[in-house]
Amino acid sequence: MKKIKIGMLGIGNIGQGTYRTLEMSRARIEEATGLNLEITKILNRHPERDRGIDIPREKYVTDIHEIIDDPEIDIVVELIGGIEPATTFMADALRAGKHVVTANKAAIAANGELLQKIAHENHLMLRFEASVAGGIPILNAVTTALISNEFSEVQGILNGTTNYILTKMTENRQAYADALRDAQAKGFAETDPTADVEGIDAANKLSILISLLFGIGVAPDQIPTRGITTVTSEDISFAREFGYRIKLLGSARAKDGEVTCNVEPSLVPEDHPLANVNNEFNAVYVTGNAVDKLMFYGRGAGPLPTGSAVMGDIISIARKIEKNAAYDLLPHLRYDAGLSFAGEGKNPYYIRVTAPDHPGVLGQITSTFGVYGVGIRTMMQRAVASHSDTVPLIFIVYAIEKNILSTALDVLVGNGSVLRVDNVLRVLDF
Amino acid sequence: MKKIKIGMLGIGNIGQGTYRTLEMSRARIEEATGLNLEITKILNRHPERDRGIDIPREKYVTDIHEIIDDPEIDIVVELIGGIEPATTFMADALRAGKHVVTANKAAIAANGELLQKIAHENHLMLRFEASVAGGIPILNAVTTALISNEFSEVQGILNGTTNYILTKMTENRQAYADALRDAQAKGFAETDPTADVEGIDAANKLSILISLLFGIGVAPDQIPTRGITTVTSEDISFAREFGYRIKLLGSARAKDGEVTCNVEPSLVPEDHPLANVNNEFNAVYVTGNAVDKLMFYGRGAGPLPTGSAVMGDIISIARKIEKNAAYDLLPHLRYDAGLSFAGEGKNPYYIRVTAPDHPGVLGQITSTFGVYGVGIRTMMQRAVASHSDTVPLIFIVYAIEKNILSTALDVLVGNGSVLRVDNVLRVLDF
Repeated sequence: MKKIKIGMLGIGNIGQGTYRTLEMSRARIEEATGLNLEITKILNRHPERDRGIDIPREKYVTDIHEIIDDPEIDIVVELIGGIEPATTFMADALRAGKHVVTANKAAIAANGELLQKIAHENHLMLRFEASVAGGIPILNAVTTALISNEFSEVQGILNGTTNYILTKMTENRQAYADALRDAQAKGFAETDPTADVEGIDAANKLSILISLLFGIGVAPDQIPTRGITTVTSEDISFAREFGYRIKLLGSARAKDGEVTCNVEPSLVPEDHPLANVNNEFNAVYVTGNAVDKLMFYGRGAGPLPTGSAVMGDIISIARKIEKNAAYDLLPHLRYDAGLSFAGEGKNPYYIRVTAPDHPGVLGQITSTFGVYGVGIRTMMQRAVASHSDTVPLIFIVYAIEKNILSTALDVLVGNGSVLRVDNVLRVLDF
Repeated sequence: MKKIKIGMLGIGNIGQGTYRTLEMSRARIEEATGLNLEITKILNRHPERDRGIDIPREKYVTDIHEIIDDPEIDIVVELIGGIEPATTFMADALRAGKHVVTANKAAIAANGELLQKIAHENHLMLRFEASVAGGIPILNAVTTALISNEFSEVQGILNGTTNYILTKMTENRQAYADALRDAQAKGFAETDPTADVEGIDAANKLSILISLLFGIGVAPDQIPTRGITTVTSEDISFAREFGYRIKLLGSARAKDGEVTCNVEPSLVPEDHPLANVNNEFNAVYVTGNAVDKLMFYGRGAGPLPTGSAVMGDIISIARKIEKNAAYDLLPHLRYDAGLSFAGEGKNPYYIRVTAPDHPGVLGQITSTFGVYGVGIRTMMQRAVASHSDTVPLIFIVYAIEKNILSTALDVLVGNGSVLRVDNVLRVLDF
C-alpha cells in the first residue's frame, strides 16, 4: 500500500479534528483509496500543553524547517490560521516541493493568487476546501462537477456564530447581547466575537467564493460589510410579520460584466431554502446557467467537519500523487475574467423608522421617497399606545442603490417627517 | 488546445440538454479546463424527427458501431435510458477502449457492478453523476471531498414528480388525482406516471446511493418500496397538525453491520431542512462520522441540470485523459463491505384508523398496542359530526418493525375495535 507522509502545521481545534478524522476513518480511507496516510510531523510551538488528544510526542516539532526540509513529506497541511506566518509557511512549503492543504480563509482571501502562482510554477497542488463553509464541499463541487456552469449568483450563510445568535434571537425572542452570551457559553462564539459578529469572517469566505465562481478578485476589505450587532428583536418580529427570516448573508452577483456583492443581515423569504438553515449550520446557495439553483447545507465549523474537508483535500492530492498527476493544468482561483467590481449594487431594502404620530407625515415620507425614486413594495404602520406621540413605520422598498436610499432618509430626518431611522436591512429577492 | 471527442448515444431531453450545456458554456469550459470538447457523433435512431435543436445533421449516425469503432472518440455518453440495450452499448464501448458517462439510473442500479468491472479491467473510467438527483453533485461529493467519512444514513427526496405532486397537495389542499393532472400538464409527470408515483425511480437511485455510501448491493426490487398514490389530503392535514410535512423519502441506514432501507411516503418534521424542499426540487441528506449532517438541494431532473451533471463527468474524465490519469485505482461502487441487508428495520409510524365511536374503544386499541409492544408517542382524536357513529384516530408510535405493527392492526380490525386502517406512513426521526 502506497504511503503518503503529511506534515501538519498547528494542532489546535482543526488540527486535532483532522488528526482524529484520519484515525477514526483509517480503515475506510484505506479501503476506498488504497492509500496509507500518515501524519508524521506536527509543528507545535507549545509541546508542553496538554491538547487532550493522544498523539505520540515524537511527532511534535517546534521548527518549521523540520517539516519543510523533510524530503519524505509529500503534503504540508497548514492549520495555524491568520495571514502570517501562515502565508510564508505555505509559500516556503510549496517552494520546497510540498503540496499544500489549508483551512485558512484569511490567508487564501489575502494571498490566494500568490500562493496559487507558486504552486503552479512548481507543478504542485494547493487546496483549501475547509476555508469556506467548513465541512460543506462547495469548492470541490464548483471546480469539478459544476465546472461547465457560468455562475450568476451566490448567497451564503457563511458564519455559524452569527447564524446561531440570529436563530436564538428568533426562536427565543432574545436580545442580541443575551443570544451572544448564550453562544459564548456553548462554545459557538469566541470571547472576542468581533471577526464573527462584524461579518469579517464571512467577507473572507465570500472573497474566495467570488474568485472561484466569477473570476475576479475582490479583497475582503472591498466588500461592503455589516455585521449583526444592530439587528434587534423588533426587526426580527417585523420581518416575520412580512414573511421573512433575518440571516447574515454573504452575497454576490455577476451581471452585464459587473460583480456586486455585500455581507449584510438580510431578510430571507420564509419559504426559501436558506430560511430553514438554523443554529450553527451554514449553507451556500448558487445559481448556474445549466444547473440552475443549488444549495449545500452543513456544518461550517467544528473540528471533525472541518477535518473532513481537510482530509478530502489530502486524499484528493494523495490519489493524484499515486498517478503522477498531482498538479493543476489551470488554476481554480481566477482573477482575470474581465469583470469589473461595482460595489453592492441595487437591492431591495427593509426600512424601520420612528415618525411623529400626526396627520400628513406618511404623505411627506412617500412623496420624498418618490422624489428619490424609492419605490415602496409593502408598508406597515402599527397602532401604538395612546400616550405615545411617535409611531413605528416599516417599509419594504424595491431594489435601489443604498446611497440614494440613505440620502432620501437623511432628507426625511432633516425635515422632521422621520424622527429616527431605526434600521435598514437588505431583502433577498426570491 | 487538447481536443477531446465525444460520441453520444441518444438525443432525447437529456441528450439535448447535454449538447446545449456544452454549447452555451463552451467559452467557460475552455477557459477553466484548457480543453476543446466536441460531440462528434450522435446515435439517433430517428434522424428524420425534428428535435427542435440546431445540430449539424452529419453528426447523426444510426448504427452504434459508427461510434464504438471510431478510434478518434475518447468518451461515449449513454443517454438512451432503460436497462437494455443501454447496458450492452456501455459494455461494448468500454471493451472498445472508450470511457463511459451515463445518466442511466436503471442500468447502473441493475448492472453497475458488471460495468464498473469492465471499466476497471480496461483501465477506463465509468461515471454516472446524473443518474442520482440530476444536477446535484452528490456522487462526486461522496466519492471525493467526503471520502474520509463513514456514512451511517441517507435520506433523499429523489424524485421530482412525486415531490411536485405532494407539494401541490399540501399547498392547494388538492387531491392526489388533481395534483397528478396538474403535474402532467406542467410536464413534471409523464402520461404513464407509474415509475415515478410508485417509487420505482426513487428505488433505483437509492440502490446506487447504498452501494456508494455503505458498500453493499441492494437491488432496487429488494428495497421495500411504496409510492404516493395512497397519500390523501387528510393525511397531509393531520401530519401538519402534528408539525410534519409528507415527502416521498428514499432512506437507508447502516448500523451494527446491518443496512436497512425503504422508499416510502414519510412524515418529515417541519423544521428539518428536507421539509422545505418543495415542488420539483430534490435533496439528499447524509450523515457522516466526521462531517456530520449535510444536505444537497437542487434540480433532480430537466435537460440543463442533468446536462450540467453529464458535462461535469465528461470534463472530469477529459482532464484526466490530458494527464494520462484517466482510470480509477479502486472502484467507487462497492458491494463487499461485509454488511448484511436487513429489510426496512424499525421505524416510527403515523397511523390513521377509523374506529367505532363508543366508550372503551380507545382502551381496547391501546391495550392491544401494548401487547404487541407498539409504544404510542402522540395520539389525536378529533370531534366529529354528531350524526356520525365512527371517529378518526391518529397515532404516532415509536420505532417498531412494520410487520409487528401490521399484525397488531389486523388484530384490532379482527376484534372490531378498529373498523378500517386508513393509512400507515413512516415518520422520520430527527
